Amino acid sequence: MTSASPSRDAPSPVRIGVVGAGQLARMMIGPAIELGLPLRVLATSAQESAAQVSASVRQGSHDDEEAVRALAAEVDVVTFDHEHVPTAILDGIGADALAAVRPGPGALVHAQDKLVMRERLTAGGHPCPRWWRAADAAALDAAIDEAGGQVVVKTPRGGYDGHGVRIVRSAQQVQDWFADFPELLVEELVAYRRELSAQVARRPGGEAVAYPVVQSVQKDGVCYEVVAPAPDLDDAAQERIQQLALDIAADLDVTGMLAVELFETAEGAVLVNELAMRPHNTGHWSMDGAVTGQFEQHLRAVADLPLGATAPRAPVAVMVNLLGGPREDLAAGAREALGEDPEIKVHLYGKGVRPGRKVGHVTLLGDDAAELLERAHRAERIIIGGPQGPAPQEQA
Amino acid sequence: MTSASPSRDAPSPVRIGVVGAGQLARMMIGPAIELGLPLRVLATSAQESAAQVSASVRQGSHDDEEAVRALAAEVDVVTFDHEHVPTAILDGIGADALAAVRPGPGALVHAQDKLVMRERLTAGGHPCPRWWRAADAAALDAAIDEAGGQVVVKTPRGGYDGHGVRIVRSAQQVQDWFADFPELLVEELVAYRRELSAQVARRPGGEAVAYPVVQSVQKDGVCYEVVAPAPDLDDAAQERIQQLALDIAADLDVTGMLAVELFETAEGAVLVNELAMRPHNTGHWSMDGAVTGQFEQHLRAVADLPLGATAPRAPVAVMVNLLGGPREDLAAGAREALGEDPEIKVHLYGKGVRPGRKVGHVTLLGDDAAELLERAHRAERIIIGGPQGPAPQEQA
Repeated sequence: MTSASPSRDAPSPVRIGVVGAGQLARMMIGPAIELGLPLRVLATSAQESAAQVSASVRQGSHDDEEAVRALAAEVDVVTFDHEHVPTAILDGIGADALAAVRPGPGALVHAQDKLVMRERLTAGGHPCPRWWRAADAAALDAAIDEAGGQVVVKTPRGGYDGHGVRIVRSAQQVQDWFADFPELLVEELVAYRRELSAQVARRPGGEAVAYPVVQSVQKDGVCYEVVAPAPDLDDAAQERIQQLALDIAADLDVTGMLAVELFETAEGAVLVNELAMRPHNTGHWSMDGAVTGQFEQHLRAVADLPLGATAPRAPVAVMVNLLGGPREDLAAGAREALGEDPEIKVHLYGKGVRPGRKVGHVTLLGDDAAELLERAHRAERIIIGGPQGPAPQEQA
Repeated sequence: MTSASPSRDAPSPVRIGVVGAGQLARMMIGPAIELGLPLRVLATSAQESAAQVSASVRQGSHDDEEAVRALAAEVDVVTFDHEHVPTAILDGIGADALAAVRPGPGALVHAQDKLVMRERLTAGGHPCPRWWRAADAAALDAAIDEAGGQVVVKTPRGGYDGHGVRIVRSAQQVQDWFADFPELLVEELVAYRRELSAQVARRPGGEAVAYPVVQSVQKDGVCYEVVAPAPDLDDAAQERIQQLALDIAADLDVTGMLAVELFETAEGAVLVNELAMRPHNTGHWSMDGAVTGQFEQHLRAVADLPLGATAPRAPVAVMVNLLGGPREDLAAGAREALGEDPEIKVHLYGKGVRPGRKVGHVTLLGDDAAELLERAHRAERIIIGGPQGPAPQEQA
């Protein structure tokens, strides 16, 4: 942990505005109440996940300049539920000193634009998959040849949860995207052993802390299962990967939480896959499983409060997402799951059920990852009423 | 744990109305959000602790029948931030089936009226200090004689945090109370070794769970410091006292959290001092320190959801109250305390500072009670800016 003195002229308490009112904003509310930090969310409707339960809601969209500026004028710090706020709006808030923007637009662009991210990480010497820019089909087909016949193509902006990502063997397969984007990001298909995620929190002055590196499993492009800390990762590798995430946070001048999603190769090397500058699905375990949960930590970081300890509360924590299944009445599912396992922690997002949509998650702490995952997946199946279960990687 | 099937016809999700909007209602909000339980509070003003941060507030007083009934009509279950709602109002809600009242008025009266409580506990064979009813000065002086010259006199109703309790040698010293109460409760002055608190949660069907028995220290009649579990209390004593609290909860048909405050005598016996039927200050450690915090547990119990595990997350948890001191700006104090100790958990109630007023609390988990208390008291002194510190009993 690097240290920095608290700002002497900081507002007290710091008022925080969150652009976006999804489940990440929702899960900031409890910690904000306990820390006594006034929190206001910008929501497109009163039915949004965080808007349902926030005492302070402004209606408006993240891409409506007037709405975002109005929020900024009411708070001391603006932060985010997602990365999609246009840079120009954020620059204007800074230029007019309406509020501090954290993370700032200069950092956030690396989570908004994957080409900018690849350029910057490569320049900084951080490990990435081989990558190319493709402005047209010919350039993409050349990259496919160079990569050995198959690549991952990503839209630079607007992707999430598997959207905006395709594995292709021919430029034909993303012909539709060339109409919308001047350039596409092309990456080699990494034959990874597993996915890891390294989260850090960083204050404006540079103080930063790292969480244990975790193992994550995706399902149809959506985070689905996390084990913290990552099994079979020795202390040296833990520290090396934590340092990578701390270095990236410092290089990019991130404030708040940063998630660095990584591929671990068969040789034990890691390559940066994606960056997220906000609390992240791979850190939900920390709400129940760490001294300082990621939502509290994000608030502390963006409010320029001293950061909290990241130590786990138990040898192992697991998190399993609840993805929309057959059951509409999640409350009834939760009732049943709580009855089956008195230790399970259930988090519901207040969202309507649609197939595969993130509607909640469960966590469990203990000593044995396999046993905890089995119990967490049982709770998951009960709550969503469906045939989900251990991810394919875990069924062997 | 006794078991009971979940109600099949329960509303889903269960809407909960909380009468009162102090810090106990406030601390229910975070867990209600995570469990997806809609929570509405009845507040006398928008400035009250819970009203500041609740997405759903009805304005009104706990003793205004129309206001309480209006709240009841909007929810499935009515529960409480304090015990002072008149029985007649609650009986009416039940009679008209506006909502379930949990705990019910027949249970709640034992936390409202100390004479009723003593009568019932004594009839049930539960250990109490010697006690008397006094309808006039002559009866009180006779009790003082019988008790050996000194007694504790309590108003049957309306007391809290040391109010309504006096230690006296003569009926003269409570002459003012005889005008307001037809009878006073008179108790022997127990030469206790320390105070303990046993908390349990109980569902309508009878399922119940017990938390570890904790040690509490009062300061000027206000809960000030808690160590969980109580030091130097062997497993047999822990279980015996937990069973006492479970028996009382069953005898009185309590639903929700019940706190049984106890005196431990030099011989290791316990005597019941007070009952509280709601989350209690002696259980604040559990928010950070137990698998299921008391606020989540209270919601689960009154919503008739399966109860959660009560196991501690660490060998020792401590809680120290923040009682109003010289510092007005608690946010600045919290900023400083968080910087001194990355493991401290700070909870602020959004209340204005007045001398001795409960304005927040801190918790810490670890292995060594003495070390944790020293750190918690250091954080306390920083936040309130005052000369508080270890309670007198701890300074030896």
